[in-house]
Order: sequence, then structure tokens, then C-alpha cells
Amino acid sequence: MIKRRKTKAVMVGAVKIGSGAPVVIQSMTKVHTTDIEKCVKQINRLIEAGCRLVRIAVPTRADTEAFAKIVQKVKIPLIADIHFSPQRAIEAIEAGAAKIRLNPGNIKEQRDILRIIDAAGMHGTAIRIGVNEASIRNLKVMDIPFSRRVSVMLAEMKKYVRLFEGRKFTQIVLSAKSSDTLRTIEINRLISETFDYPVHLGLTHAGLAEDAMVPSAVSLGTLLAEGIGDTIRVSVAGDPVGEVEIAKQILLSLGLCEHLRPELIVCPTCGRAEIDVVALARRVKRAIEKIDRPLRIAVMGCIVNGPGEAADADVAVCAAKNKGFIYRRGKKIAVVSAKQIIGAMLKELKNL
Amino acid sequence: MIKRRKTKAVMVGAVKIGSGAPVVIQSMTKVHTTDIEKCVKQINRLIEAGCRLVRIAVPTRADTEAFAKIVQKVKIPLIADIHFSPQRAIEAIEAGAAKIRLNPGNIKEQRDILRIIDAAGMHGTAIRIGVNEASIRNLKVMDIPFSRRVSVMLAEMKKYVRLFEGRKFTQIVLSAKSSDTLRTIEINRLISETFDYPVHLGLTHAGLAEDAMVPSAVSLGTLLAEGIGDTIRVSVAGDPVGEVEIAKQILLSLGLCEHLRPELIVCPTCGRAEIDVVALARRVKRAIEKIDRPLRIAVMGCIVNGPGEAADADVAVCAAKNKGFIYRRGKKIAVVSAKQIIGAMLKELKNL
Repeated sequence: MIKRRKTKAVMVGAVKIGSGAPVVIQSMTKVHTTDIEKCVKQINRLIEAGCRLVRIAVPTRADTEAFAKIVQKVKIPLIADIHFSPQRAIEAIEAGAAKIRLNPGNIKEQRDILRIIDAAGMHGTAIRIGVNEASIRNLKVMDIPFSRRVSVMLAEMKKYVRLFEGRKFTQIVLSAKSSDTLRTIEINRLISETFDYPVHLGLTHAGLAEDAMVPSAVSLGTLLAEGIGDTIRVSVAGDPVGEVEIAKQILLSLGLCEHLRPELIVCPTCGRAEIDVVALARRVKRAIEKIDRPLRIAVMGCIVNGPGEAADADVAVCAAKNKGFIYRRGKKIAVVSAKQIIGAMLKELKNL
Repeated sequence: MIKRRKTKAVMVGAVKIGSGAPVVIQSMTKVHTTDIEKCVKQINRLIEAGCRLVRIAVPTRADTEAFAKIVQKVKIPLIADIHFSPQRAIEAIEAGAAKIRLNPGNIKEQRDILRIIDAAGMHGTAIRIGVNEASIRNLKVMDIPFSRRVSVMLAEMKKYVRLFEGRKFTQIVLSAKSSDTLRTIEINRLISETFDYPVHLGLTHAGLAEDAMVPSAVSLGTLLAEGIGDTIRVSVAGDPVGEVEIAKQILLSLGLCEHLRPELIVCPTCGRAEIDVVALARRVKRAIEKIDRPLRIAVMGCIVNGPGEAADADVAVCAAKNKGFIYRRGKKIAVVSAKQIIGAMLKELKNL
């Protein structure tokens, strides 16, 4: 079990972030906010996939007006994504944003930041303070060598946290982001050592789905394994439902969320395999796709690790030439022909 | 930069593992070893993909005979995968295995383990000592609660290392494997604290490709980010070339191998995007797929992080409605129509 780092609690509507709450998966809509129907539909697909908070871009006045309507139409708290405009922030807060994402670095005047903080305080809106390597332009971060950037980002974060605390506002979630895996790991370790506010993890601009999966899993996984991170967003250039699927896989792999679906263990096969393990595993996967219980199912191709994995599985098959040994919780209970393997496994799963 | 943990050096043929050498990617053949032609073909595809060591199963006498022939036909050192049979181990060593993988737990008699060690010593063959959670059956590990297993695995490893050292054999690589992400992380941390031999990392039985990618990236990534791991194998039930691709992505994301291909940064898009960022990124990806230099290319959909990412990229586009701002190493150098974006980027890449 991972020992999660202790933080203050921040409420985003009814969703608690930090202070021992389960890691919250969030994502972002990718259709125009003014297309209310499409937006609501995408949010509902995200909820269905396991997303608990959704962020929405509100670059124009028309967007904050649409945002107000979307808030009324969906079941989960929404976050407004603010850039450059204090006016959009105030409008979003008044429109019912449960949280806003604010990169104070791109709000020109400090008095505007203070206005936003006060409005959020009045409306019970949480604020994510974002320090983003790619957007701290007024600091000319890009002229700073890579080796110095995380300390500059940390100094920025300290400055903003002091500003918020000075205004007696503590409903804050901290995020420091980079498109570089190592700097993402490093800056978040520093942030979590320095503050006790919840931390939002993300790797920015990770790329197309097939390119984004590994670096996101490496950076977020490394931090989560160290107990760092209270809410996560995986960035993928593509359908946001894919972001939620990857986020869930990361959390599942670390035991950080309930296994609400079976886990399928499959041996990688080698020259020892006497059957087509991959084809068998694909058939098992299709056969179990409707099961929504935390079961562990193993498909193994030989006796080297087969019986061992079978011992940890609820149901397992060790396949040999033309036949399969079926195991239930480590006990060998049947030997069946190759054709009968799927049926025998499903029968056992039903019996559990 | 990751500070790699210091270890002894182990030579596997001409490939050095540990002691500051780059992390070595390895994989395993998945065709019958006796089918020499298919085996050689698969090994050559693995080499082409970036694999530097290949392991081969040798369950029968016919397999070790084939192994001897395969050794002669390929350009990289080969590892023989031994289970249960000391005779196969000796045959493989004599056949020219540069390394054998041995789980001493599945060799019944200690005198047979000593015979194998002595043969390896005579032939300059390295040995990977494997302790596998699913295969330490004679210890009845499966009856031990999860919370105690890693300490049992560590105790096993200590026993074997003493046995090898007692025989003055130190060309050893250590691997302790589990199909559980957290226990994989935990046992490898312990192994690397306890010994200064190189460590082989892997998550066993990770599953079908789409299920294996995230847990492999999380477990291996977390350990590598801590400086642990000298050779890695990603297990996927499927084509072994896919294993090498994932392994490369993990190493690339942590700066642990040379970027021999461009890195494509893409913003995840949101309600602000005025163009189809994903479609543009796919076109850019196709256009750059032949480039084998470590370039950083960014495709960004708006001005929030666009100019910032552009500053770190060799070539970037910030796309707006019907047009694209082209950047070369942070400097805006052209504004082109949507149709001209790819051409303009390729021209810049050529100029670099």
C-alpha cells in the first residue's frame, strides 16, 4: 500500500481533494464551450468513464454564459479554465464554477488576482494555482537553463501561495507543470515538500495517444508511488475519454482505486508455449468484459510460472498442448480440452 | 538527469550491464527455438527495433542444439532461459550462451546449481539470478500473505548471492519479479539497497499490449527514475518488437537513452482550439517519421502555452483560425495559411 502524503482538504463542490480522499481523476472538454449540447454530452461520457471533475475553457464572454448553463445540466462540479482575463474568472465564479484554474503568471495586475481571490472566497469556489513551465513568459523562463527552471517555478509558487494566504484564502490546489517527464517529477517533489496543500499532477502536452501513454504513466506513476498527488489529469491530444482511461490504469496499477473490473494477467509467451496464448487471452478478455467485479484472472502458457500465478488468481488457466488446466484460487480443479477452456473459466467465474 | 545507482559491471558478450553503462533493452523470442529460421528472423527484427540482448527458451535438448546454431547466425549476445533442468543450463553454456537466466529456486539440488555456476565460470557466461514471486513454489510463497512476500523474496536472493559468491562467481545480474506493480517497486528498491550487482527490471505477465503498457511504465519508470535498473525487459503478450518499443519509450521519457527520433509535443486541445490540432499533429507525425535526429517539434492549438512550448522546440507551430505561426527555436519566423503549415515546418526542419 502506498502511504499518501498528508495534505489539507479542499472541497470542489461535493468532491474532496486531498487529506486522504481517493485520488480524483479529472479531464477537460475539447469542444467549443458555446456548443452547450456537445459539451454536456462530452461531460456525460467522461462521467461514465470514471471522471469526477471536468474543466472547461472560457476564453470569451459567450463561453462563460454557456458555462453557466452547462453547470445546471451536469451532475458533477465543473472547473473553469482561466487565462489572461480577470473578467472571465469573475464571470465563471458567479456562473457556478466549483473551482477555477488560474495561472497567476498570466494575469497582468496583482490587484486583479486579489479581486479573483475575493470573489472565489465569497462564492466558496476553490482555486488551482498553476505554474506552467511553458507559460511563465513574463519571467522569460525560456531563457533560463533547464537545470534552474524547477527552482524558478518553485519560487513563483511560493510567491503566489503567500499572496493567497495573505488574503486568508486556503481552498487552493497546487500544480506545477512541464512537458518534460523528469522536471515534472522534480518540481512536484519540491512542491509537496514545501507545502501541505493538495497537488494536481499532470504532464503537459504529452502528445498523441500512442506517444502520451508511457511518459504520462512514468511521470504520474513515479510521483503517485511516492505518495504525491491528490488529483490527476492525463493530457492526450485526442478524445478526453482516453485521458480518463489512462488515468484509471495508472491508479489501478498502484492500488490507488477500487478494481471495479477484472485484472487479466497474461504470460508474454516464449518458445515454450504450445498454444496461441495471445489468441486465448483475447477470447478470455472478450468473455469477461461485462464483469464489474475486482477479480484476478490469469492466462498462462506453460508450467514455469503458470501454477504460481494461478495461486494468486481467482480463476486461471495453464494451457498445454491441446488442453488447459483450470485453477480456482490456486487449486487445480479440472483438465479440459482447448475448446472447453473459455467455458470452463466462465463457469468458475460464475461460481465465485 | 537521473543519478544512476552504482553497480559492478557484468559483461554479456560485448554488452556491458551496470557500472554506468546505458540501460540495456532486452526481449525474448516467442517462436519455437527449434524453428531456427523463424527465430533468427525474430531476433533480427528485435535488433532493428533497438533490442541489445535476446533471451531464448531451451526446454528440450533439441532446443539447446538449435540455440547453438542460432548463436552463430546473429550479431548480438544471446541469453538462454533455463527452468528446472541443470542439463539444459550446461548445454546452453557450452553452446555459446553469453548469459543464462537461472531461477535457482526451480533447480532441485544445490550441487546442480554449483555445477552450473562452475560451467558458466569456465566459459565466461554471465548468470541472471531470478527470484520470481510466481515460481518460488518450493517455498510455498503463495501461502505467505502479500505483506510478507517481498521480505521472503529478498531472503531468497541473499541466500543465492551468498552461494554464487562462495563459488567466487560474481558475473551476476539480479532480478526479482512479480506481476504486481507495487511489489515490483518495493522488492527492487530492497535489492538495490542490499547488493551492488546490476539489476534486471521487469513486471511479469503484464498482459495484452493495451493492458501492459501503463503498469510496465509505472513500475519500471518509478524504479528507473530512482536510478535503479541496469537492463530492462517489458513483458507483453504479443509481438516482442512491441516490448522493445515500450521499453524505448520508457527510457526516452526519462532521458535514459539517446533521442534518435524527434519528440512530438502536442497540446491536448480544449474549447479554445480553432483548428483540428489532432489531425494537424498526425500529419506532422507522418511527415517527420523518417527523421532520425533528436529534434523537439511542437504542435500547439492556441496562445496559452503555444509560444512557451515553441521556445523549447526546434520547430513549432501555434495554430490559430485558418493560419499557423511558425517558430524556429523560439523565434516567430512566419505566418502561413493552414494549408502551408506542414510545408513550412518541413522547410525549417531541413534548414536546421
